[in-house]
Amino acid sequence: MKIRPVKGTRDFYPDDMRVRNWIVDAWRRVSLRNGFEEYDAPIFEYLDLFTVKSGEEIAEQLFRFADRGGRDLAIRAEITPSLARMVNARIHSLPRPIKWFSVPRLCRAEKPQRGRLREFFQWNVDVIGPAESLADAECIFTAVDFLREVGLTSDDVCVRIGSRPLTVAALSGAGLSADRMDAALAVLDKRPKVDDEEFRRLGQAAGLSAGQVEAACRFQDCADVDAAAAVLPDRPDVRSALDDLRSLLGLLETMGVGPYCRLDLRVVRGLAYYTGLVYEVFDAADELRAIAGGGRYDNLLEVLGGPRVGATGFGMGDVVLGILLQEKGKLPSAAGGVDFFVIDDGEGLFDRVIGVVAQLRSRGFAAEYSYKRSAVGKQMKEANRRGARRVVLVRPEAVTVKEMASGRQVVRSLADFLAEP
Amino acid sequence: MKIRPVKGTRDFYPDDMRVRNWIVDAWRRVSLRNGFEEYDAPIFEYLDLFTVKSGEEIAEQLFRFADRGGRDLAIRAEITPSLARMVNARIHSLPRPIKWFSVPRLCRAEKPQRGRLREFFQWNVDVIGPAESLADAECIFTAVDFLREVGLTSDDVCVRIGSRPLTVAALSGAGLSADRMDAALAVLDKRPKVDDEEFRRLGQAAGLSAGQVEAACRFQDCADVDAAAAVLPDRPDVRSALDDLRSLLGLLETMGVGPYCRLDLRVVRGLAYYTGLVYEVFDAADELRAIAGGGRYDNLLEVLGGPRVGATGFGMGDVVLGILLQEKGKLPSAAGGVDFFVIDDGEGLFDRVIGVVAQLRSRGFAAEYSYKRSAVGKQMKEANRRGARRVVLVRPEAVTVKEMASGRQVVRSLADFLAEP
Repeated sequence: MKIRPVKGTRDFYPDDMRVRNWIVDAWRRVSLRNGFEEYDAPIFEYLDLFTVKSGEEIAEQLFRFADRGGRDLAIRAEITPSLARMVNARIHSLPRPIKWFSVPRLCRAEKPQRGRLREFFQWNVDVIGPAESLADAECIFTAVDFLREVGLTSDDVCVRIGSRPLTVAALSGAGLSADRMDAALAVLDKRPKVDDEEFRRLGQAAGLSAGQVEAACRFQDCADVDAAAAVLPDRPDVRSALDDLRSLLGLLETMGVGPYCRLDLRVVRGLAYYTGLVYEVFDAADELRAIAGGGRYDNLLEVLGGPRVGATGFGMGDVVLGILLQEKGKLPSAAGGVDFFVIDDGEGLFDRVIGVVAQLRSRGFAAEYSYKRSAVGKQMKEANRRGARRVVLVRPEAVTVKEMASGRQVVRSLADFLAEP
Repeated sequence: MKIRPVKGTRDFYPDDMRVRNWIVDAWRRVSLRNGFEEYDAPIFEYLDLFTVKSGEEIAEQLFRFADRGGRDLAIRAEITPSLARMVNARIHSLPRPIKWFSVPRLCRAEKPQRGRLREFFQWNVDVIGPAESLADAECIFTAVDFLREVGLTSDDVCVRIGSRPLTVAALSGAGLSADRMDAALAVLDKRPKVDDEEFRRLGQAAGLSAGQVEAACRFQDCADVDAAAAVLPDRPDVRSALDDLRSLLGLLETMGVGPYCRLDLRVVRGLAYYTGLVYEVFDAADELRAIAGGGRYDNLLEVLGGPRVGATGFGMGDVVLGILLQEKGKLPSAAGGVDFFVIDDGEGLFDRVIGVVAQLRSRGFAAEYSYKRSAVGKQMKEANRRGARRVVLVRPEAVTVKEMASGRQVVRSLADFLAEP
């Protein structure tokens, strides 16, 4: 009976796992140096947690099932609702700002496509507490700090920054009613992926007039904050959102990541819960899906039974990132190898080999040996295949230690060698 | 709307996550030095993969669901079937022995109990290829190497070693027919958890005669291999299984982990797929569930469409292990802290603080600062809370760098500090 893996999932053979670990290790390292602490949540939750506020796009993508008591559960397709639940549960004891990161395994019940799988890993970085754009800037800086860390320059990737409240203002300023807003935002989010005609058709289907579609495009095509201000209604909430945007762009310059970032008011984000600045990271050639996306979601904790508190963050999946790193030749190449490969050079010495290997391992060295008692030459071959840095030839009276890189070798007593390997 | 986590799952707040990472890091480190390479498989697979050979105990514990095409899927409750599937798919290109490890997230649809949750992490270590007990010895050595690494001695934990084929021989020797064997093994597996009367009742229910129950107990109570040989039928397969057991116990002595291990023929293991040596790790006081369990499963790859090939390994969950480490006071205590906490000592210096922090982080230092512009004393308090090793006071003309442990401080120019932080 032959069984295949489910389409859209991945087997991680050791070579694949080394790449995944290399990415995840860099995510962790960069998060910690940017002052974020790691958390995690269960991989499944009550279905309600995900459907309350994430909107239809997420709800449709959930793998759902029931526990023995018949309660509806779902595998997480994002971790932000779990984050909000966890923070709410300890909102009075957690010192703020709450700067947390996670690398959850996520699943999506949808048709697999290039860059979009049914199971993936996603780096999540969030700041909860501050309402100021400083927190948004910290998140974007952290994303760029990682991109630089893995060798991607501002010629390779670009952070495109938009604003939910300004997009909403452009639509409401053109007369769109509040009840049609979510559908309209979902259409605007699709604009970069469709041609003008299709975009107009989608707009009409969502209840936008030709004038409203035109107004939205005029706003989205503004090249800088002043130009956007000129096409938007002059209201206190609009002025405040414009200030947030200016402040964010200024902070990113001060932090030295300006060249990675630019204003792009076509960025809307698909999820329903965003309330402020939003951004997406793309490859500069614009050939792949988004590498990362995030923004401010000041309502989510309140919707889930907590207080109204500032919250902002992003997610970066491993799939599109992996494709880009592969294309740019930035992935690590080789296996790790072992510190020692121990060989029995003569009859009746295998027990000694096993003893030496056991002692080396317990003292922290990666040590390996051949399961088969064969000629020294054959065992040397296996040592090479395992990437051994040193080979130890065990003989009745002594051991020979050979450095594989230089070929240099020394003869030592077994006791000497074990005292200082 | 307040939503709770599902019972039997865990939220990992940063303090919990540090403990989990500390355990997982030790699992990885010990695996690598013992010559194992890491792999992983999807968290869900076609249901068939899990039901083919694992037996009812596992099949009942699966969270099942369907994909959009209506195919039956399940979240993994163990990774061994996925391992067998992956190895089968590349059986002709993978050099042997295949020494792999993994730290999968697993889920079980059952009532949570102390030490047994619905979601947990499990270290899996397997050797595929060799049929010899040397491979079993390597797995057990690796388990003990980890237990030693985290500070557990042979006074704290014990590896109890049994044999499936000898247990089967004891039952068949007493006249039990092959079709009743699996049910009988499941009963024997429960013996350490129930009293004599209940055990006899379970035996009868599984179709064992009083004489067969007695014969099984006589075998299980043997204190050494010779005593077991005396109560078993003298057949080639029995002699071979006795030799395996003697060889394993000898190898474990040679490897220096003899004091952690002892023969215990009551160990049977619950899963249906075991075919040879089996073992379980318990706390020495015998107050908790098994910390780890494993054994030889030479049929599994063949059942899943591959060749007949030797395979052996174990799994160690994080839940019982965590309880024992907690009880023995072996868990790490404190948070990590940051290398630098940067403070603006004066008006109009915040941009400089942000720039310094950004540069420190990008150069690999963990650096933090206060989001709020407040007095130096208040910021120093935050630096202490964040476990800062050094505080950098930024002033218009220079910076003061203070070592928090010693209180020692030096004044430097900003350029000097950034050149060598």
